[in-house]
Amino acid sequence: MQKNSVKVSMAVVRRLPKYYRYLGDLIQNGVMRISSKELGKLMGLTASQIRQDLNCFGGFGQQGYGYNVEELQKEIGRILGLNQTYNCVIVGAGNLGQAIANYEGFRREGFALSAMFDVNPRLIGNTIRDIKIYDIQDLGTYVLENDIQLGIICVPKEQSQGVADTMMENGIKAIWNFAPADVQVRDNVVIENVAISESLYTLTYLMNEPQLEI
Amino acid sequence: MQKNSVKVSMAVVRRLPKYYRYLGDLIQNGVMRISSKELGKLMGLTASQIRQDLNCFGGFGQQGYGYNVEELQKEIGRILGLNQTYNCVIVGAGNLGQAIANYEGFRREGFALSAMFDVNPRLIGNTIRDIKIYDIQDLGTYVLENDIQLGIICVPKEQSQGVADTMMENGIKAIWNFAPADVQVRDNVVIENVAISESLYTLTYLMNEPQLEI
Repeated sequence: MQKNSVKVSMAVVRRLPKYYRYLGDLIQNGVMRISSKELGKLMGLTASQIRQDLNCFGGFGQQGYGYNVEELQKEIGRILGLNQTYNCVIVGAGNLGQAIANYEGFRREGFALSAMFDVNPRLIGNTIRDIKIYDIQDLGTYVLENDIQLGIICVPKEQSQGVADTMMENGIKAIWNFAPADVQVRDNVVIENVAISESLYTLTYLMNEPQLEI
Repeated sequence: MQKNSVKVSMAVVRRLPKYYRYLGDLIQNGVMRISSKELGKLMGLTASQIRQDLNCFGGFGQQGYGYNVEELQKEIGRILGLNQTYNCVIVGAGNLGQAIANYEGFRREGFALSAMFDVNPRLIGNTIRDIKIYDIQDLGTYVLENDIQLGIICVPKEQSQGVADTMMENGIKAIWNFAPADVQVRDNVVIENVAISESLYTLTYLMNEPQLEI
């Protein structure tokens, strides 16, 4: 993968998946070309914000012609690392773990989920969409032997750090954590702590402060 | 509820739920008082950032004594509107809808979930933790008759806007949307589009650019 010479701010990085999603919808709807103004209107951003964001990666538009939707999506996908395959496991096979295992976009985008893990004997041995649920005691060995790069944590918060530690000890380099507790990682491991309830509490704030400037 | 006279930026608002969660964990661990420096270390923020954030709401600490953890959490909860009760419904009773219905903190924090809705005849009539699943055709009437304020959308993206429209037509003022498509709302309705995959794609970006400044 081509490395960018300039460091990009996390604010820009966090907008890239949104570009990727909107451009994917445009492709589905048969749109082949779009101006920064039109894309901005769709996404709730200004045209200049969009041009600035994309210029961080060299810029893709042609003055007066707008962006080629398919090329731009492909390029953003490449920047996001979605042109690669990632070996994944999910730890915690409850409703949330199952929801992620069933997420349609997961396989399409190169996330190769090969196993789930749980402590519950009633779940161990079952399969979800051909994915077998293993005993959580086998997590470390499985991760090591199957070159798993990405670990997804869907266990209660009390267990989350322990699961993360086992993952990291066995070579996992990225953790997507849904437990409502920020997991601590080593220097060479990247993490996204999702904390779903935070967006709910933002919503209740907004319900009570509808005059807020956004 | 006391209104704040100063407009607060969304960046600060989005950090408040994180303060709320960390302070809750401190209370559970018996910590009664904490300095902005210690809290910052826990949360990955600087002490001055924390003082700035909390000063937006009048400031709570006492110079040299730090913050009273329980009082601060209670006050932030009040600012977030968590001292109130919200009548909620979940539309989409699949894995994700069930995960949210089962989320332990949901009831504790005043979210009164009274019904779920689905199109699947095999789900309609069942209950999840005492919550009945109704036919989605009854959504509008139910929302209107039961004074539902908050609607949670866990349906596929193709159905999400239609569900949101029915919610808004019947008086819902806040929507928590998990469908991977940004739902458009009226002026007097607030929305949080969660788009879970965005954090996954941020993670794959970070896996490929570990030198990024965060």
